Amino acid sequence: MPAVSDPRVLVDATTRDDAAVFRLSDDRALVATVDFFTPIVDDAHQFGAIAAANALSDLYAMGARPLFALNLVGWPRRPELLALLEDVVRGAAEVLHEARAFMLGGHSIDDPEPKFGMVTIGEVHPDRIVTNAGAKPGDRLVLTKAIGTGILSTALKNEMIGEESMADAIRSMMTLNRGAMEAMEDVRDAVRAATDVTGFGLLGHLHNLLRASKVGARLDAHAVPVFDHVRELAERGAVPGGTERNLAAAEAYTTWEDGVSPVERTILADAQTSGGLLIAVAPERLAALRAALVRREAQGAVVGEVTAAAPGTIAVGTGGAPA
Amino acid sequence: MPAVSDPRVLVDATTRDDAAVFRLSDDRALVATVDFFTPIVDDAHQFGAIAAANALSDLYAMGARPLFALNLVGWPRRPELLALLEDVVRGAAEVLHEARAFMLGGHSIDDPEPKFGMVTIGEVHPDRIVTNAGAKPGDRLVLTKAIGTGILSTALKNEMIGEESMADAIRSMMTLNRGAMEAMEDVRDAVRAATDVTGFGLLGHLHNLLRASKVGARLDAHAVPVFDHVRELAERGAVPGGTERNLAAAEAYTTWEDGVSPVERTILADAQTSGGLLIAVAPERLAALRAALVRREAQGAVVGEVTAAAPGTIAVGTGGAPA
Repeated sequence: MPAVSDPRVLVDATTRDDAAVFRLSDDRALVATVDFFTPIVDDAHQFGAIAAANALSDLYAMGARPLFALNLVGWPRRPELLALLEDVVRGAAEVLHEARAFMLGGHSIDDPEPKFGMVTIGEVHPDRIVTNAGAKPGDRLVLTKAIGTGILSTALKNEMIGEESMADAIRSMMTLNRGAMEAMEDVRDAVRAATDVTGFGLLGHLHNLLRASKVGARLDAHAVPVFDHVRELAERGAVPGGTERNLAAAEAYTTWEDGVSPVERTILADAQTSGGLLIAVAPERLAALRAALVRREAQGAVVGEVTAAAPGTIAVGTGGAPA
Repeated sequence: MPAVSDPRVLVDATTRDDAAVFRLSDDRALVATVDFFTPIVDDAHQFGAIAAANALSDLYAMGARPLFALNLVGWPRRPELLALLEDVVRGAAEVLHEARAFMLGGHSIDDPEPKFGMVTIGEVHPDRIVTNAGAKPGDRLVLTKAIGTGILSTALKNEMIGEESMADAIRSMMTLNRGAMEAMEDVRDAVRAATDVTGFGLLGHLHNLLRASKVGARLDAHAVPVFDHVRELAERGAVPGGTERNLAAAEAYTTWEDGVSPVERTILADAQTSGGLLIAVAPERLAALRAALVRREAQGAVVGEVTAAAPGTIAVGTGGAPA
């Protein structure tokens, strides 16, 4: 792949950031991202809404506002399934509408295994891009949604639970990270870095942020909000393959303090869909960020602290999350 | 789906155009499109190059210049296949480089059936967008690549031919429509409408252009350039499902003059990958367009004429293509 060295390319794949950022002029930059996956809930409308919220999340994580989106559809060519696809698209369109973005087309192919996702394109002022590369020792780590959606979806697929047992998680996945992004705007200069928590799990996305920022972190396992039933389901083996791979990868950069149980480790590595934003904020502005999150109807759990430890490394303990 | 009625949305899916166009300012508009598909040739590097040329083609069809792209990857999680994926990405990157566009990331998922494609984002001046909606009776229809790639790919898959028998088609699919787009720029005011010829085949894409333009057309089957071996392979049954569906759909808007054989009908409906541009040009500027195409090293076959027949209808004859 040719190296990207053009002043217009502000963010590319090399920093493992959430989206690409391309400068159009001194005061405008485009942000673009793409995501798609197989159904993780039974309800088609909800699946579409989750896919849209998930795809828009990468834009919000970079401080951008969505402009428009294109659908990506892989779907079986069977008439009885096409009605379901319409529900998926309708669910996605509603969430896009809520985000004030337009659905302007897309691409479909025949696929024996249904898939849906979106390309989302947004805009941000080049001086206000939030990347994953600016965290500094002492910054507090704030997480805006609970985790455990991968484990819940796997339990649903394995018929260990019904959809009603993961209603909170479904609502969370359908919720835009717009409120969290607007809260970041409210305390703009204090936000050092952010990312959204998706397929690599909390540990994986935190690791990428720490690596890009050349810092370490300490995470308080007991301060991380987790959806109901997740611990019990993980103990009973409802663990997605992606989560297992995330945990195996995390062993290379994570140290576990005494008292962090195996199931807690698994949950911290759980592959998320449409997870929250993970924000590194200057400690003196933590209260202001949390107040802004409340105002924007988003959660804000303080889950850890950035440290001067080796870049990318995470120490996971129990208790001691800074206020 | 909420209706799109915002002055910034210049082109959306409702006109069946090739890409979405979003106005950023009076002198800048974004063009975005997405396309992905399963491998159509054996060589991974060639497949990547074709996927990139194909995805960029939608931008060129609208008169836009590419800025950047994101990869879409569905690939089996098997180590022996990951080297192939690297070749695919390398082939795509080379074509993007040739198009002066950047590859800035993307998204991958596990998929038992390999797929690759791209999101491409480009830019065009809002006054210079070439849509499919401006063709007028008397315009000449110019096609910039031969057709038959769907039939050839199916024959390859069915082991009726080796890859060497479709070398011309592979080269054609790897070729950017940039030269054709630049030729359109050279005679800008004379280009009334354009589209690129892909999955719906020549008839299907012409139909969409005619419908959007509220005109009809007459096509000269014998003036349409066709790759070697395609006629014989179609006669022997190497016809993709998509081509058969295209032909069935075409029956609703196409009339066949005497002498258009069944195999010729099939070829005109053949689902293409990375096909050429189909350009409607004012008759008095046809020679100028063809000269510009020669200068830009693109082909330019005159395959028919726009008529005042019922919107979207196509009369297919043999002979009589206007000069």
